[in-house]
Amino acid sequence: MDYSLDSGKVAEATERLLRQRGVDKREIGELVLFLQRDYYPELTIEECLESVERVLSKREVQNAILTGIQLDMLAEEGKLLPPLQEIVFNDEGLYGCDEVLSLAIVNVYGSIGYTNFGYIDKTKPGILKRLNEKNGKDVHTFLDDIVGALAAAASSRIAHRKQAAKESGTSGMD
Amino acid sequence: MDYSLDSGKVAEATERLLRQRGVDKREIGELVLFLQRDYYPELTIEECLESVERVLSKREVQNAILTGIQLDMLAEEGKLLPPLQEIVFNDEGLYGCDEVLSLAIVNVYGSIGYTNFGYIDKTKPGILKRLNEKNGKDVHTFLDDIVGALAAAASSRIAHRKQAAKESGTSGMD
Amino acid sequence: MDYSLDSGKVAEATERLLRQRGVDKREIGELVLFLQRDYYPELTIEECLESVERVLSKREVQNAILTGIQLDMLAEEGKLLPPLQEIVFNDEGLYGCDEVLSLAIVNVYGSIGYTNFGYIDKTKPGILKRLNEKNGKDVHTFLDDIVGALAAAASSRIAHRKQAAKESGTSGMD
Amino acid sequence: MDYSLDSGKVAEATERLLRQRGVDKREIGELVLFLQRDYYPELTIEECLESVERVLSKREVQNAILTGIQLDMLAEEGKLLPPLQEIVFNDEGLYGCDEVLSLAIVNVYGSIGYTNFGYIDKTKPGILKRLNEKNGKDVHTFLDDIVGALAAAASSRIAHRKQAAKESGTSGMD
Repeated sequence: MDYSLDSGKVAEATERLLRQRGVDKREIGELVLFLQRDYYPELTIEECLESVERVLSKREVQNAILTGIQLDMLAEEGKLLPPLQEIVFNDEGLYGCDEVLSLAIVNVYGSIGYTNFGYIDKTKPGILKRLNEKNGKDVHTFLDDIVGALAAAASSRIAHRKQAAKESGTSGMD
Repeated sequence: MDYSLDSGKVAEATERLLRQRGVDKREIGELVLFLQRDYYPELTIEECLESVERVLSKREVQNAILTGIQLDMLAEEGKLLPPLQEIVFNDEGLYGCDEVLSLAIVNVYGSIGYTNFGYIDKTKPGILKRLNEKNGKDVHTFLDDIVGALAAAASSRIAHRKQAAKESGTSGMD
Repeated sequence: MDYSLDSGKVAEATERLLRQRGVDKREIGELVLFLQRDYYPELTIEECLESVERVLSKREVQNAILTGIQLDMLAEEGKLLPPLQEIVFNDEGLYGCDEVLSLAIVNVYGSIGYTNFGYIDKTKPGILKRLNEKNGKDVHTFLDDIVGALAAAASSRIAHRKQAAKESGTSGMD
Repeated sequence: MDYSLDSGKVAEATERLLRQRGVDKREIGELVLFLQRDYYPELTIEECLESVERVLSKREVQNAILTGIQLDMLAEEGKLLPPLQEIVFNDEGLYGCDEVLSLAIVNVYGSIGYTNFGYIDKTKPGILKRLNEKNGKDVHTFLDDIVGALAAAASSRIAHRKQAAKESGTSGMD
């Protein structure tokens, strides 16, 4: 076996698949702004977007995204075995593997993100509403949780950096 | 060492401490009803309460409750070491050990509870609003997350049982 | 949409897929015996096997098994998208989604199982050695972690029940 | 309330408490070397120690350490409420809050650390053997898991960096 991992390809595939599945990173940034603007009124969409980029640069995060989107796509094409096919296709209520994978994303920036993850996963603001619309064709069972987790993790990162900035007297987003 | 664990005492202490800290189990049941009534319009407060009782009977859950409430009480009495004393007393934003312990409660009934946990932890309905009010004296840094986790776990249990009932044609709460 | 989940089919598919992928439940029972016999010298393989069966009856566990085995099978058939295909096929060292899904299995019987999960995942006793052998054809990236998690969860269940038995004076495996 | 968190104090207290409880960071570095030397024969204790330092610089990690050691110390002084006092003092087998807090440490560097955490928590190499010796006086119920988690997280960090180094042709520990 002459296997050699190429991290660049993992990062690139993550970006490409998100785009291909209809996720604009700016929309994730908007979720972050929605979650954090009450705490940091001066927060800009650019800061949020930069935080999303940093979350997306983590291997743990990329692995979860590739795996989740792959399962969504296979369900869309009808290529999973029954009953997993029906479960993922219909985003069945007792199926929690999507939440499990997403929590691995949240964890990378610590446990303070659990609350934000659950909150937007339930209230479905912005892009999450669109991803969650069932049209009998597109499957986003994993993707909507993943996007929520990315926003929650990016929010945690901002909270940590804003605190550091407050203590050091800088802007916190260098 | 002649240590011998008495499970009855662990269960009993859990009940007593919850009561002593101002938590009425019925209020947790009301959170469950709030979370689940849109899915099961016929759900009663008694069913919710019974589910809360079952969650409370789990050792993993009891351990998390005893540990969290103990830390709240010590912070209230000013007996933790600095800076943990200030962190817990003020429910500091970057401190996530309360969320971590609470997620262990949610996990016992599976990952489908993460969303509900985050949602009520953020929106603070019912008893959670009261527990979260800062009066400069009472400390509920751990307890509010614990109560939210109990409600989320009890909701997951109901979702699992309602599905079983639907398939078998029974009421699902025997 | 007229989707209606059939729990019997989920349980049945779980059993069938485990068998089809070369896992004999008795071998998981042997892992449990290996993990627990120092603590309970009188423990029998039948008790261990019964505990494995109970773990397997949980929906959270079934979902993780179906999802993990599905990914293994697709990697075996070369049907995942690159680079996920190469990552899962080669059980790449920085890929942790297999551990993440498996921990969801462990969690159902509480956090005391984390240690056992990690221990046998690293030392690969019994069936885990066989599942972990690379022959350039079979892929068990998810399955070996899943089997370890099943054994760890069944061990936690035994620890809880043996304590209950000790306190009540019964055998603990009724 | 004029509470203002001082991150420097949190980091400082973490270092001081670890030292005070008998943990030399070099010993954690030795656990890392023990876990990783088969994969990276050229790995030095200095690299391991540097990785431990980086793990210790994370707020999530510091919070878990402060909380766990605090509970150990209170149990040592007999200041917890019964039955939590007996549970923590005796490192009771069904108590898993120590594992829960420790997993939050592991999570910061991703899920690939679960296995290493469980492995050394079970086999107790080096400092973990000493911390785990019961003398009827010292309590390290939380600390031994925390130290294992720090070593596991530092090992994950090394695995990630060595991969990056391999791909870029550098030493990976700049």
